[in-house]
Formats: sequence, C-alpha cells, structure tokens
Amino acid sequence: MSDVFNFSAGPAMMPKAVLQQAQQELLNWQGQGTSVMEVSHRGQYFMALARQSEQDLRQLYQIPDNYKILFLQGGARGQFAAIPMNLIGCRGKNKALYLNSGHWSATAAKEARLFAEIDEVSIVDEQLAITQLDFRQVADQYDYVHYCPNETISGVEIFAIPEVGDAVLVADMSSNILSRQIDISRFGIIYAGAQKNLGPAGITLVIIREDLIGKAAATTPTIWNYEVQANADSMINTPPTFAWYLCSLVFKYMLQQGGLSVYEQRNAEKAKRLYDYIDNSKLYRNVVAKANRSTMNVTFVTGNPELDAQFVAEATAAGLHALKGHKVLGGMRASIYNAMPIEGVEALIRFMQQFEQQHS
Amino acid sequence: MSDVFNFSAGPAMMPKAVLQQAQQELLNWQGQGTSVMEVSHRGQYFMALARQSEQDLRQLYQIPDNYKILFLQGGARGQFAAIPMNLIGCRGKNKALYLNSGHWSATAAKEARLFAEIDEVSIVDEQLAITQLDFRQVADQYDYVHYCPNETISGVEIFAIPEVGDAVLVADMSSNILSRQIDISRFGIIYAGAQKNLGPAGITLVIIREDLIGKAAATTPTIWNYEVQANADSMINTPPTFAWYLCSLVFKYMLQQGGLSVYEQRNAEKAKRLYDYIDNSKLYRNVVAKANRSTMNVTFVTGNPELDAQFVAEATAAGLHALKGHKVLGGMRASIYNAMPIEGVEALIRFMQQFEQQHS
Repeated sequence: MSDVFNFSAGPAMMPKAVLQQAQQELLNWQGQGTSVMEVSHRGQYFMALARQSEQDLRQLYQIPDNYKILFLQGGARGQFAAIPMNLIGCRGKNKALYLNSGHWSATAAKEARLFAEIDEVSIVDEQLAITQLDFRQVADQYDYVHYCPNETISGVEIFAIPEVGDAVLVADMSSNILSRQIDISRFGIIYAGAQKNLGPAGITLVIIREDLIGKAAATTPTIWNYEVQANADSMINTPPTFAWYLCSLVFKYMLQQGGLSVYEQRNAEKAKRLYDYIDNSKLYRNVVAKANRSTMNVTFVTGNPELDAQFVAEATAAGLHALKGHKVLGGMRASIYNAMPIEGVEALIRFMQQFEQQHS
Repeated sequence: MSDVFNFSAGPAMMPKAVLQQAQQELLNWQGQGTSVMEVSHRGQYFMALARQSEQDLRQLYQIPDNYKILFLQGGARGQFAAIPMNLIGCRGKNKALYLNSGHWSATAAKEARLFAEIDEVSIVDEQLAITQLDFRQVADQYDYVHYCPNETISGVEIFAIPEVGDAVLVADMSSNILSRQIDISRFGIIYAGAQKNLGPAGITLVIIREDLIGKAAATTPTIWNYEVQANADSMINTPPTFAWYLCSLVFKYMLQQGGLSVYEQRNAEKAKRLYDYIDNSKLYRNVVAKANRSTMNVTFVTGNPELDAQFVAEATAAGLHALKGHKVLGGMRASIYNAMPIEGVEALIRFMQQFEQQHS
C-alpha cells in the first residue's frame, strides 16, 4: 500500500515518521510499560511532554514571549463561540467585525452572533478574489476583527494580513497554520483545529497575546475561559493527551526537517506545480483568483459533474484518495498540507495527465 | 515490562488487546493504506465505525430505543456547562437541584451556577456515607436533579438511583460508566468523559432521552447543542475520530468478553478482595462508609503521610503505578476500572502485605 497518497481535507494525512514512532511506542511510552494515553496528564512524564511541545512550537513558529499557548478541546467550531465569550468588551466596544471570505468565516460569524453584536462584511467577490484588507477606517468601532486566512472549501487563501488599527486581530488558521512563516505579533489570537497541519482531530490550539487574557464574560464555560486555562497550563480538566502527544511529535519532526522555512518553500512548490499544470491543461480549471489561490487546498473541476465523479473514482482506485470536493461545491479538491510530500503532487499530476488524455 | 499494573485514576489503563489492535493497524486501517486518524469522518469507513460503535454500546448497556447517543468534545467538565444550557427550563421550573457527594458533584454545581439558578444539597456525611436519595418531596420545583454516582477522589459510590419524581435525573458517570448494569430508563441524561472506562481522554459520551432534546437555550454553543448534534450524528464539526475509534474497539472487546454482567461480577470481586484485605490489615484503612465504597476507586491510608509517600514510591518501583492519592486527599488510591485485571489487584495485595510486614 506504499503508493497511497491521501488528499483528505481533514482529518488529513500525518507525517509517516510520526505515525511510525507512535506505533512503535503505543504500548510502552518512555519505557514505562504503559501507553502515553494511559498516564495521568499531571504526572511528570506527560507534564514534560506538554512543556516540550510548547517550547518546540514557540521555536517553530517564532511565537513572541508575550503570547500564551493553549491546547483546548472543541475544535475551531468551539472557538467560534469561545472567541466572543472571551473578547467581547475587551476594548469597551461590545461589538466585533467579521470578514466573510467564504463558508468557514461566515460560520464563525453566525456562531459569534449567539453571544455578541457582530457586523459582517464580505471581502470576496464572484471571481473568488479578496477585495479588501484595510479596515483602519472602521476598526475603532470594534473590540476585534475576525477572519479566516484559508477557506478550506473554496480554496481561497489570504496572504496579506488585514489592517485593523488598534482593534484586536483574530484568525482562524485551522487549515493553514504552520504552513508558512507569519508575523505573530500582528495578531491578538490565532487558533486552529489540529486535524490539518498539527495532528489528529480532537485538540485545538490557541495562541493568545497575554493582555487579552482575563476579559472573559462571566458566562464563559470554564474549559474555554482563557484565563483559567492559561493559569492551569491547559489542564483545568483532563486534556486530550494522546492528540497532544501526536502534536508534540509533529512539532519535533518539523524542526528536524529544518523548520518552517523549509515547509514554506515546499508548500509553495507543491502548489505551484499543481496550479501550473491545471492552468496549462485543457480539461481542468481552478476558478480562484490567482492572487488568492490556496497553497493548502487546490480545487478544480472539469466542468462536467459526471466526469468529475469518474475522476474521483478512478483516482481512488489508483491510490490517490479523498479527492472529492466538498459537498457544497462539488468537483475535486486536493488538500496538500504540510505532510503531503512532493511525490504525492507529482503522482496526482501524472494521473490528471493520463485522465485528460483519455477524455479529450 | 509485562509486570506493570497501572492504577491511574484517569487517563486510565485500557484493555491490552485494544491497544495491540490499534498498534497493528495504526498506519493501515481497513486496508486503506492510511491511518484511521487520517480519514474523513464523513467517509464511508468512518461512518460505518460510528454506526457500529453506537450499536455495540446500545447492546452492551441495554440502552432503550428512545435514547440518543452523542459523542462530543470537552470532557465531563464541558458537560457541566452544557447540561444547564440544554436543560434549564425543560419543565418550566428554571431551577435545578445538585446533589453534593464530593468534589466532582460540587464542581458540576459550581459550573452550572454560571448559567442557571441552582440549589445544592449535601448528601454525604463526615463518615463518607450517603445520607439521602429520596427527593420526591422537593423535586417538583426543579427541571432536573444532578448527581455524580461515583466520586473519583474520595472513592464514594452511590449504588441506588436517586428518587426524583417527575424531575429529570442527570448523572455524571465519568468514573463508573459501563462498570455494572443499570436501568437507563430511570435517567434523563447520563454523561461521561471517556478516560476511565471508555477509551482515551478527549471524547465525551452523552446518552439522552429523546424528549429532552430541543430545549437548549439560544446561547448554547453549537457543538454542545444536543439537538444540533443529534441531527448531525455528533458530526456538526470534526469529531475526535481516533478517540472514537478506540472507544469502538473497547465496546467490541467488552462484548467479546461476555458483556456487562461479566464486568459487573469481575469489578465486584476485585473491589471485595481489596477492601477485605484492607479491613483485615493493621496498617491500612479505608475511611468510606461500607455501603458507599467505590468499586472503581479504592482509597486507603496508613495514617502516616511519610509512610504513604514511601508506599507509593516502593510500589512504583515494583511496577504498581499511579497509586498516589489525589492531591486534595493525600494517601493512596487504587483505581481498578474495567480494564484492570484481577491479577493487578492480586499483585497490589501481595505488595501491600509485604510492605505491612516490613512496617509493623
């Protein structure tokens, strides 16, 4: 089965070396004779893992000292609720601005409305181009501005960082976290579900500037109260220890591979090859504006839904898995997160060429 | 390392056969050439796993057809918030009663107070005996009555089911779920974090009577809205798939072992042997009233904190892990959940005998 390449949008593929290490030590971690998932999160071994994972992530992502790192539960969707609970009123404005660039940013705004007054502005046009990122004129009305720099479904990525003046910038980076170097100091909060670039589903990363901690509404569930969790090292209740462990292995592996600059280069190269091939093909097209094509999720269609379905079926049979587009868009989607090797993209392009020859 | 027995209170030991299967198929699940943690939760393979896990749990626990089963995130502590969000007002009372039998039931009440008006009544006395379980006289004032049938820290278990008239009975069964047969139809909601008897940390089971679904407050985070999650098969967002998979293996394994009656018998036998030994020893004592001694968490002390510390250190060196009592109580605690074999209890008793001989 060594020929399988898994293009799942998430839960997504993980580095093989990480899975191999997890497999090898699954029943005997740290020579303790027990699994990492069977030990107390408050024991010395797991606490050391937690500390090391934070250290490695800080190094990898160049996270400034005035930011806290939390490992929580509930996914990005949980944070859609937790963000307004923790931030509304933090600048005395009692209102937030949500930038709508597609499905996930719109879903975040919808959830936030359950808890706070929200303004929403569309920043994407019909050509799937981002239209606006400068909000300095209006930002002072808001406690924070929320956006989603990579829309997994449509494959739209926002590379520049929105300008929001003194408002707090909050980013759902679930699908492009750790994919390239960014200036963390521009953000108030960065959060991400793990299941694309960090580890397995079931753990949620929150990187938060310290001065934003301690502003939670009284009705914030304790497990999502950033102050409580920051003071408890993310252990106010039992954390998802095995998922955390896998994230720690991923961070270590990424450092061993040369750190984020290596991944940034690889990811750019993988995306370029795939988009270049699509642009030069007569069968496939990608409908996202060139400046906002995602390096993580490459969407494409033949224009014929039946042919799309045939493509997906034949690709699966050829060991190229999970290429079916999201149900709301149809077509195909190749998710090429950090763990996808260039060989996977090359294999996909070869298959696309063969399929094109057979159908043109 | 075959001699290690792990008495961790949670995350706790898992059946070795389950870990071995997980290890064997970690990189190639269902012959797909990918890990179970790398595939879409909405794909046919994981959906089949989800359905089968529900079926197996229904069979194992004899769950009536008018109950829904949800697999959520956030732990029991998340449900401490979600329960009042979903149930307050369900009978038009806008108030709930919390029975306090120790640390965890008190913590549940404290969290619930963030969201609703709560009355709290102590049901445990200084002898760690449960004093009252009949609340029919007062229950009509409340939407629901909440209790925790096994207090993990003190080792107090409530074997009879509280009488609450027409009020909804809600139980946090995190530490004794699936440990014995119960009449599910007496409960409105049973919930449990997985990390004691179900699987790894990071997934939360909610068993809910159907007529209680659809009563959530508007400000309930979507991932904890029982109606939304019931309609989405617990997949309104990406569930913790690997944890769910491990739970499914545990359910299957328990059925193979003969089902819940077998575990009930084994658990009673393990607890009886340990308590009998403690009661006959001159060195150790357990301070819980006999009628409420937990079958899951057996607490004991020597009466000398230094000797307790020595006991824990020497036991660890002898391969009997995680016997240190909870920090709020001190002493020792042997958690003997479903996965602990009788041989583990026998090894512990042998060690306790030797230690007693050396120190008397």
